[in-house]
Amino acid sequence: METFGKRYHPPGTPPGTLSRHGDGGATRIRLLEYSSEQFSEILSPTPEQCRIAQQNDLIDWLDVTGVHDPTAICELGETFGLHPLALEDVLNSGQRPKVDFHEKHAFLILNLPHLIGEEIVLEQVSLFVGDGYLLSFCSGDGEAFEPVRARLRQGFGRIRTRSVDYLLYVLIDVVIDSAFPLLEELGEQIEDLEDLVLEKPDKSVVSSLHQLKRDLLLLRRALWPQREVISRLIQHDAELVDETMRPYFNDCYDHAVQVIDLIETYREMLSGMLDIYLSSLSNRMNDIMRVLTVIATIFIPLTFIVGVYGMNFKNMPELEWHYGYYGVWGIMIVLATGMLVAFRWRKWL
Amino acid sequence: METFGKRYHPPGTPPGTLSRHGDGGATRIRLLEYSSEQFSEILSPTPEQCRIAQQNDLIDWLDVTGVHDPTAICELGETFGLHPLALEDVLNSGQRPKVDFHEKHAFLILNLPHLIGEEIVLEQVSLFVGDGYLLSFCSGDGEAFEPVRARLRQGFGRIRTRSVDYLLYVLIDVVIDSAFPLLEELGEQIEDLEDLVLEKPDKSVVSSLHQLKRDLLLLRRALWPQREVISRLIQHDAELVDETMRPYFNDCYDHAVQVIDLIETYREMLSGMLDIYLSSLSNRMNDIMRVLTVIATIFIPLTFIVGVYGMNFKNMPELEWHYGYYGVWGIMIVLATGMLVAFRWRKWL
Amino acid sequence: METFGKRYHPPGTPPGTLSRHGDGGATRIRLLEYSSEQFSEILSPTPEQCRIAQQNDLIDWLDVTGVHDPTAICELGETFGLHPLALEDVLNSGQRPKVDFHEKHAFLILNLPHLIGEEIVLEQVSLFVGDGYLLSFCSGDGEAFEPVRARLRQGFGRIRTRSVDYLLYVLIDVVIDSAFPLLEELGEQIEDLEDLVLEKPDKSVVSSLHQLKRDLLLLRRALWPQREVISRLIQHDAELVDETMRPYFNDCYDHAVQVIDLIETYREMLSGMLDIYLSSLSNRMNDIMRVLTVIATIFIPLTFIVGVYGMNFKNMPELEWHYGYYGVWGIMIVLATGMLVAFRWRKWL
Amino acid sequence: METFGKRYHPPGTPPGTLSRHGDGGATRIRLLEYSSEQFSEILSPTPEQCRIAQQNDLIDWLDVTGVHDPTAICELGETFGLHPLALEDVLNSGQRPKVDFHEKHAFLILNLPHLIGEEIVLEQVSLFVGDGYLLSFCSGDGEAFEPVRARLRQGFGRIRTRSVDYLLYVLIDVVIDSAFPLLEELGEQIEDLEDLVLEKPDKSVVSSLHQLKRDLLLLRRALWPQREVISRLIQHDAELVDETMRPYFNDCYDHAVQVIDLIETYREMLSGMLDIYLSSLSNRMNDIMRVLTVIATIFIPLTFIVGVYGMNFKNMPELEWHYGYYGVWGIMIVLATGMLVAFRWRKWL
Amino acid sequence: METFGKRYHPPGTPPGTLSRHGDGGATRIRLLEYSSEQFSEILSPTPEQCRIAQQNDLIDWLDVTGVHDPTAICELGETFGLHPLALEDVLNSGQRPKVDFHEKHAFLILNLPHLIGEEIVLEQVSLFVGDGYLLSFCSGDGEAFEPVRARLRQGFGRIRTRSVDYLLYVLIDVVIDSAFPLLEELGEQIEDLEDLVLEKPDKSVVSSLHQLKRDLLLLRRALWPQREVISRLIQHDAELVDETMRPYFNDCYDHAVQVIDLIETYREMLSGMLDIYLSSLSNRMNDIMRVLTVIATIFIPLTFIVGVYGMNFKNMPELEWHYGYYGVWGIMIVLATGMLVAFRWRKWL
Repeated sequence: METFGKRYHPPGTPPGTLSRHGDGGATRIRLLEYSSEQFSEILSPTPEQCRIAQQNDLIDWLDVTGVHDPTAICELGETFGLHPLALEDVLNSGQRPKVDFHEKHAFLILNLPHLIGEEIVLEQVSLFVGDGYLLSFCSGDGEAFEPVRARLRQGFGRIRTRSVDYLLYVLIDVVIDSAFPLLEELGEQIEDLEDLVLEKPDKSVVSSLHQLKRDLLLLRRALWPQREVISRLIQHDAELVDETMRPYFNDCYDHAVQVIDLIETYREMLSGMLDIYLSSLSNRMNDIMRVLTVIATIFIPLTFIVGVYGMNFKNMPELEWHYGYYGVWGIMIVLATGMLVAFRWRKWL
Repeated sequence: METFGKRYHPPGTPPGTLSRHGDGGATRIRLLEYSSEQFSEILSPTPEQCRIAQQNDLIDWLDVTGVHDPTAICELGETFGLHPLALEDVLNSGQRPKVDFHEKHAFLILNLPHLIGEEIVLEQVSLFVGDGYLLSFCSGDGEAFEPVRARLRQGFGRIRTRSVDYLLYVLIDVVIDSAFPLLEELGEQIEDLEDLVLEKPDKSVVSSLHQLKRDLLLLRRALWPQREVISRLIQHDAELVDETMRPYFNDCYDHAVQVIDLIETYREMLSGMLDIYLSSLSNRMNDIMRVLTVIATIFIPLTFIVGVYGMNFKNMPELEWHYGYYGVWGIMIVLATGMLVAFRWRKWL
Repeated sequence: METFGKRYHPPGTPPGTLSRHGDGGATRIRLLEYSSEQFSEILSPTPEQCRIAQQNDLIDWLDVTGVHDPTAICELGETFGLHPLALEDVLNSGQRPKVDFHEKHAFLILNLPHLIGEEIVLEQVSLFVGDGYLLSFCSGDGEAFEPVRARLRQGFGRIRTRSVDYLLYVLIDVVIDSAFPLLEELGEQIEDLEDLVLEKPDKSVVSSLHQLKRDLLLLRRALWPQREVISRLIQHDAELVDETMRPYFNDCYDHAVQVIDLIETYREMLSGMLDIYLSSLSNRMNDIMRVLTVIATIFIPLTFIVGVYGMNFKNMPELEWHYGYYGVWGIMIVLATGMLVAFRWRKWL
Repeated sequence: METFGKRYHPPGTPPGTLSRHGDGGATRIRLLEYSSEQFSEILSPTPEQCRIAQQNDLIDWLDVTGVHDPTAICELGETFGLHPLALEDVLNSGQRPKVDFHEKHAFLILNLPHLIGEEIVLEQVSLFVGDGYLLSFCSGDGEAFEPVRARLRQGFGRIRTRSVDYLLYVLIDVVIDSAFPLLEELGEQIEDLEDLVLEKPDKSVVSSLHQLKRDLLLLRRALWPQREVISRLIQHDAELVDETMRPYFNDCYDHAVQVIDLIETYREMLSGMLDIYLSSLSNRMNDIMRVLTVIATIFIPLTFIVGVYGMNFKNMPELEWHYGYYGVWGIMIVLATGMLVAFRWRKWL
Repeated sequence: METFGKRYHPPGTPPGTLSRHGDGGATRIRLLEYSSEQFSEILSPTPEQCRIAQQNDLIDWLDVTGVHDPTAICELGETFGLHPLALEDVLNSGQRPKVDFHEKHAFLILNLPHLIGEEIVLEQVSLFVGDGYLLSFCSGDGEAFEPVRARLRQGFGRIRTRSVDYLLYVLIDVVIDSAFPLLEELGEQIEDLEDLVLEKPDKSVVSSLHQLKRDLLLLRRALWPQREVISRLIQHDAELVDETMRPYFNDCYDHAVQVIDLIETYREMLSGMLDIYLSSLSNRMNDIMRVLTVIATIFIPLTFIVGVYGMNFKNMPELEWHYGYYGVWGIMIVLATGMLVAFRWRKWL
């Protein structure tokens, strides 16, 4: 994940300016209209089709994937009467999750995290919900919403029989729950790392730890505010969320809290593991030093003794003694044994 | 305890989908009906028996153990009119403790921690409380509720004379209090570890510390929200909790707070102990280095001196001196004594 | 102080069960009756005497010391109509400080810390305050209340002229203020330790630090909730605390806050001191290593040089040179001096 | 950034005393008057011109750059009826961001951070907003407002058609958003440092880390309160902020929160990096010590052995043996090989 | 500053007992009476003078310096009808800052920090404000209020024309602002220490760091509650603070917040600096060890080689070779060069 990860205009740019960032995939627009009886899906609808759709009695879901084309987004904004600042946030992905209540619609920004290969990628999902219509904008490929589209097409489950706030719930649920597989994967990585740290810590541990901490830190920044978004959605006294939908949104809220709980737990586990790793490094250093010390303190004095009798003085009586050589060996053995005993007594061996 | 520890559906699954996870023990259902005068217990009641029980004036406790059979759970859900999302939470154990107030009943999730051998296991206890009936679902073996069942059978104490909220209190009390024996056991382990760290720290300390910290971290995640659950239960203005039951639920709340207090205290004690362990490692390293330094700095210069007189130069006048050898010994003794004095002065010996 | 420190029933025990824990000193009961004019004190009053006392116009203080006798406590409970859960808390000492408002009386639990020798001991003080009577239960020897009893006996100060809430204030004041001499003692220990750490840190520092941190941690757990207890007592809108008594209870509240402030400050000072100690260990290690390095790097090359001229090759021209020996000395002196200069330049000497 | 960074009067100075601090650039005053139809700009207006401007129907923006001239500021204060304490805050730059609601105008203090070369500089922006006029005081060069002045001059965008609260929003937006380029720059520095720490940590890392932490700490102190300033501005029930302006100020609020989020994330990343750096230092020390230990423990015993046969005892039978020399070599090779095997077995090689 | 720093009565002392602590300077009492027209100052007024002063229309400031004389304080208490618990707090300096609203007056305790030489000293300032009179008690020498007395005497500024709450504001302002010179001084010390830590860390750093941390910790304890005191003063709905005085007290509040902000920032800077210091210690150790390792690993093998040819075996063919000596030198030079290359490759040189 990117550290800064936010797109912004240079300070001083007039508010509501829409501009192109990077060149991701093309913008694909799908218009799904449904009621309990009928369902239709139009790819790349014309503005006129959108306007008609908005006025009939069906529930309209305008599903936009890829938000790199300011012109198309701006056109949609005009068709549905969206606030220019909200459109700016749709285009400038990397926003903080939030909910804004405008006159005719609510505007939500959420982050949908998923793994691409080894890397965690955040897709910004922007939702506009009004009376009978919902616009969704995904900064990524929008594949996460495919099961929802499939359920709508097949008329499976309750989804076609309920109003637009049920669709809103389903999409939010997908976004929130998409964190679970990711966190399960991270949980497994953490457990593997834990075993490594406790059993045979090596240098790779440090960078793995750092990578995981960093990912969790950025993930927390991205997902933490979602809890408040859903809480404000529930508490908002407009008729946006129907009374019978409460348990569903409460369930979303619980999941958002669980995601944060897990992230916090993981972060604490990781910070504990660095301490363990550092103490195992210290332990290792102690082992190494102990060996060095034992060897050196035994042999340095012995080497001194043999050096003494390697001196070339004319007058060194010991050298003439018949058992001098054996005597020196005796002294050295006694000395070495004494030291070994002392080391064992100090628990260094 | 498992790090991730949560069961979930793949994102995009329709809400209220009930599916089988793992294959734990069989689902056992007990229907206990009682009033102050009578008591009956039916094992594996039929749906019909449940429906009848629900309509009579007795208090019904449907005690379900093992939640791996989606069909049976689903049937019960229909009989008692339970919300599909709540049933989903019953089956997907590893939920965060919470309380939801539905139209006809309240739904609670609690975690019951206990020790199996060395390992801490969390049983999810889900409770539905309605007018005159209580459903309890235990993800484990439900042994913790045996004393309550026994009291009901024997008509011991006040339990048979009170309404269903007293039964609710008794079950919550069992769940909350089950943390105390566990925490007492952990407290003893921490005190043992403390003695070990202060007296003769060895490598096993690190992994024990880590294991305890990890257990407490996961335990905190599981038990922390229970405080709020009980607090919301007390504050909820429905007639769920009778005025005369307030002191009982307040007592539960106090116990839930004490559990968290203990966990936090233990966690702080453990984090202090790692510091102590690290400083004892440093102390040890200092000791080892001091010995090495003393031995090396005394003998290295002496070895040099004897090396000098081991040289084979033709013209080395000292070698010819009659007392040269003794003179060298004298110099070396003076040098060694001087160093020992210096070391003692620096407090290295 | 004990780490776990709480007494509890096995989970599943019926609420309100009173049972004997340990066998502390005998239970002593004193009944003190007073008004501004009269005063009487009865040791070990009969239940009948208690009942009479409760009905007359005098203020009654039933002062119970030692709470190990369930029968006596239970009898008192019946006489004064106390809640069984409250009596359970009185017997199971080690409770968290709290205040409960029952119909006819308020129930308070407080912790009275004092030093016995070197060890901090917590006495649980349980207070029931009703209309014209106050029951106090001390888990310890109750000596802390002796000055209050003396003031009552002598009619000294305002105490005899005021109502029962003044007596409540006086007892709470004694309990809260008993932390000050203890904290003053701990403050002195911390200052002594601070001097030790900064001037000549040795190994005893670590265990002293640990002991102090542990004591403060457990003290905080025991005293922290007292602030809220008093705050709830003040805010409670019953007529328990008279308007003119407000400044007195506010004063108690300020003292409770000061106690927590001091504990937190001490804890932060201690955690800073461990860092200082660890850095002094590192400093020491640096010193030791520097000496070793200086000695070793000077003499190891010199020893090599003298080793060279100790070789026994037939053909070593230098050995034959007349000034060879002096030349080698010259080289060695230059080398050693050079190294000393280098070390001084690197600030290692 | 300066650590203390605040200007203040000596304690005891009468409130509202205006005095000169340092001698920054000259004070430049610009009076911009506009409505949707007309626009005029007066450099260094006379007090009389200001008074006239204030009374006509146009929107007046008095843009003051450089706040080192107490006389000029004082004159303006009298013309517009500003509170003396507010004027004092304008002159004593380094204030905490705040908003005060006076009778006729609101007074805001904000911090505008920008990079000058390598250094982060805080400009204090003080805004007075009244009915139809806005006074802005920049302690720096005021260049950040140039795009706004340009938009006013060119009549570009909505700015000329809206009332004074839109101008207020635009200026606040510039101040808040000016943190983004700075934070992007810091984010890049952090990522560079991260690579350095993980790949080849050297000593420069420590001071870079420290510098970044310090900058972020001071930046947080300067920007943290801005969130609350905007939040109070939105919640204030005066007609200061028109209903249609809400989304704009909400947007500012979101940006202020994002700025703080980023700063906190960066701070946590940096504190993780110091741990990584310290563990890489420990790792390095381990490597060094391992090499030293291997070399020393192999050669020290060997050197002892050759020392033994360098002794000059008359009676040393081994010296006479024909294959003695080769035997010693054999023993030494066996010994060295054994040690190498032991080291490899311990994973030290 | 003292760690405990609080004076208290032994637990069990009747409330409102006034007793003498230590023997600081004598108690000096000044009575300043003023209105916009007149001003009089009486040193050591009699109780009678005080009583008269209280009844006339002038504003009375009774300024008491040195609070060691219980009799004088008690007399004043009776004259002005002060609460005995408040008087106890005046005498027992070292109280936590607080505000109490009594029936006829408000009672404030504040801490005035200043430097005496190198040491930070806290003066307790106690203020009683009633209708038309203000009593101030300083535990120190009261010099900080001299500028206020001077302004009153000279009738300089607004002070003589305003009511007693303006005097209250002026005194609080002096107390709060007295922290700024102190914090500026500490800020400079921190910056000096920062340079020292980054450039040439030595042992003195640790005790300086510790001293500064300790001072800031105690300063925080003393000044933190002042924010709440002023906030409660502003919010209190009595007529104590006039509407026109709001901006003045808001200004005090902002300053109190800034003081805490600065203390917190300093504390975080200091805790970062200890990490830097520790990492510089580690860096240094690495340098030392590297030098030792390089020298030792080069010369130890060489010394072994020369030792080999120092052996006295009869049969050592190499010794007889004509170029044996030069050959050994060759081998040693190759070996040493190889090692140097290896070290450079590992970046140890």
